[in-house]
Amino acid sequence: MSTFNPNTRIGILGGGQLGLMLLQAGIDWNLTVHILDPDAEAPCRHLATSFTQGALTDYDTVYQFGQTVDLLTIEIERVNVDALEALEREGKRIFPQPSVIRIIQDKRVQKQFYRQHNLPTADFILTENRADVPQVLAQKPDFLPAFHKLGRDGYDGRGVQRIATSEDVEKAFDAPGVLEKAIDFEKELAVIVARNEQGQTATFPTVEMVFHPEQNLVEYLFAPAAISETVDQQAQDVARKTAEAFGIVGLLAVELFLTKDGQVIVNEVAPRPHNSGHHTIRANVTSQFEQHWRAILNLPLGDTSILTPAAMINLLGEPGHSGPAQYEGMEALLAMPGVFPFLYGKKITRPFRKMGHITVISPDVNGLKAKADAVKETIKVKSKG
Amino acid sequence: MSTFNPNTRIGILGGGQLGLMLLQAGIDWNLTVHILDPDAEAPCRHLATSFTQGALTDYDTVYQFGQTVDLLTIEIERVNVDALEALEREGKRIFPQPSVIRIIQDKRVQKQFYRQHNLPTADFILTENRADVPQVLAQKPDFLPAFHKLGRDGYDGRGVQRIATSEDVEKAFDAPGVLEKAIDFEKELAVIVARNEQGQTATFPTVEMVFHPEQNLVEYLFAPAAISETVDQQAQDVARKTAEAFGIVGLLAVELFLTKDGQVIVNEVAPRPHNSGHHTIRANVTSQFEQHWRAILNLPLGDTSILTPAAMINLLGEPGHSGPAQYEGMEALLAMPGVFPFLYGKKITRPFRKMGHITVISPDVNGLKAKADAVKETIKVKSKG
Repeated sequence: MSTFNPNTRIGILGGGQLGLMLLQAGIDWNLTVHILDPDAEAPCRHLATSFTQGALTDYDTVYQFGQTVDLLTIEIERVNVDALEALEREGKRIFPQPSVIRIIQDKRVQKQFYRQHNLPTADFILTENRADVPQVLAQKPDFLPAFHKLGRDGYDGRGVQRIATSEDVEKAFDAPGVLEKAIDFEKELAVIVARNEQGQTATFPTVEMVFHPEQNLVEYLFAPAAISETVDQQAQDVARKTAEAFGIVGLLAVELFLTKDGQVIVNEVAPRPHNSGHHTIRANVTSQFEQHWRAILNLPLGDTSILTPAAMINLLGEPGHSGPAQYEGMEALLAMPGVFPFLYGKKITRPFRKMGHITVISPDVNGLKAKADAVKETIKVKSKG
Repeated sequence: MSTFNPNTRIGILGGGQLGLMLLQAGIDWNLTVHILDPDAEAPCRHLATSFTQGALTDYDTVYQFGQTVDLLTIEIERVNVDALEALEREGKRIFPQPSVIRIIQDKRVQKQFYRQHNLPTADFILTENRADVPQVLAQKPDFLPAFHKLGRDGYDGRGVQRIATSEDVEKAFDAPGVLEKAIDFEKELAVIVARNEQGQTATFPTVEMVFHPEQNLVEYLFAPAAISETVDQQAQDVARKTAEAFGIVGLLAVELFLTKDGQVIVNEVAPRPHNSGHHTIRANVTSQFEQHWRAILNLPLGDTSILTPAAMINLLGEPGHSGPAQYEGMEALLAMPGVFPFLYGKKITRPFRKMGHITVISPDVNGLKAKADAVKETIKVKSKG
């Protein structure tokens, strides 16, 4: 195992909230972290050893940034993989590996990967354009209700359309996509897996995500999930197998459906720290961010045990408010014991924009929902004036 | 209560490890923090919104830095208080208050403060120079063994001499000092108190400090302290009364002796985050660093409850090693569950220099000492080559 060296020059593609929390965790070990982000006002701008403004999808920008560091990682998967592959061929250490990012970048490739590796996932059909969708459905009417997902560049709820009846086909994307049979699920779960270069893996305890009915963003997260031991074991197994199938070095966040008949299947994955692991900063022995550093620095993985049950609520921009952000109710929020706001430092709020998150801890699992609801009522992100 | 505003320009006098951990905690709330430190290579140099190099003891430097911020705090008490008082007179918010820093800066004034406020502390006699010490002792031979402490500028074990017999008087300082009767103590304890502008106070659970026999630095810290409920109550009461006597806004770390006859008395205090609270980052609901922000930003104080028992070990430069630092054994250390190194990013190691600390958590209080000893054997800070 390599000697730990705090002078290793680490680069992160992306300087948003995930980069910010990586930087924060990296302070513990005095890591040297350089950031590339297109936004001059990115949350990481003041906290990195150096901050470079530039497009993550531009070959030359990514290639040149990569040349200045010893080890490259990502906090977002929409990056120029060609540049990463060129850097990798030249011997640069890049984790997660460009090959993994390439698969995950395209939901079509991702879904085929699950099928090839016998990983349980919702049935799907690839489509090339909008016109394909009614044709496919004419042959397989029992495929409805379904979701049409854009192959590339969908995120945070964008790039997904629900096709409930054949009348909805006009909502389908006119671009390469995947039509996925809707799962009648009991719950949505997530497991974050870490894997280092030795192939050591560690999974975080299974969490339960409750999505906002309209925004397709996580509204509440509960850790641990209220599931049977059998289901938990399935979730942990499927997540670990998925990470091993990818051979990823780094974190793989595996979003799962628990079907009404008790099966656990893969929904989608992200090769990086994830919204479903933010509570681990406060509630677990090792946070997902420290675990990411351990995995990509080829260090022993940390203990993922729970210190306390927790809930997480995304702090979204209030509907009807766009402009310079201000936080109403912080004092009242901070008067509530075991409530931890985390603000991402985004200057501008927009309706439902992720402006931060709030972790709530409580020794009483059953009290978490009420506490989370009280939190949601207490703090609001609005625009000034 | 004032509206929380992440754009408040906060300045910290000092950019060492305490500043670093304040910055790290401040990321949660997207605080804007400017740092002044004399060392261009100070641990905070890359992480602050801005970093200014300059002497903390220089009137003009401190005064000018203070003009650029809305709220000023400290991470070290050897700062120019005249400049702070001038800034305060002009309406600048400064916490802890300059008047508090002035008392604590001088151990002679500090000891008199305890006496005036009926706070229990070891008996003492003020001395003006070295020649005073034998004169005083000739009149009070039962004052030995004693410690001679430099009034000003002593820190981290410097500025204290043990006077066991009249032959040791040559070790006394030839400068204004205080001769303090040595306490035959059972244990050394510490309690960190937070107090905000409303006068709300919150104390962290009492911890036990074990000092290095030669270096007068904390060798081990155990939280919570292994003491009776009666002693604990005394420690909490004395600490809270001390903070209230000062009327401090911010943190007051109160170091205490538990005497062999079961009394708790004040040893000394620090008006800022303290080595005796580093474990709170990992082991308590609210860390001392977050609590400092809450106190000086006039926010409700956080829950100080323990999530898990913990020990803390200072990571000191290995004897015989001076020069660029390297960390031996980090991989082995990180393979131990529930062990959290925190490296301060000091480029140069020296014998017994504080280079970092390590927090150890364990649900089993009794296992903490063995785990802490294993940690000490595992990691070493040496110079390169």
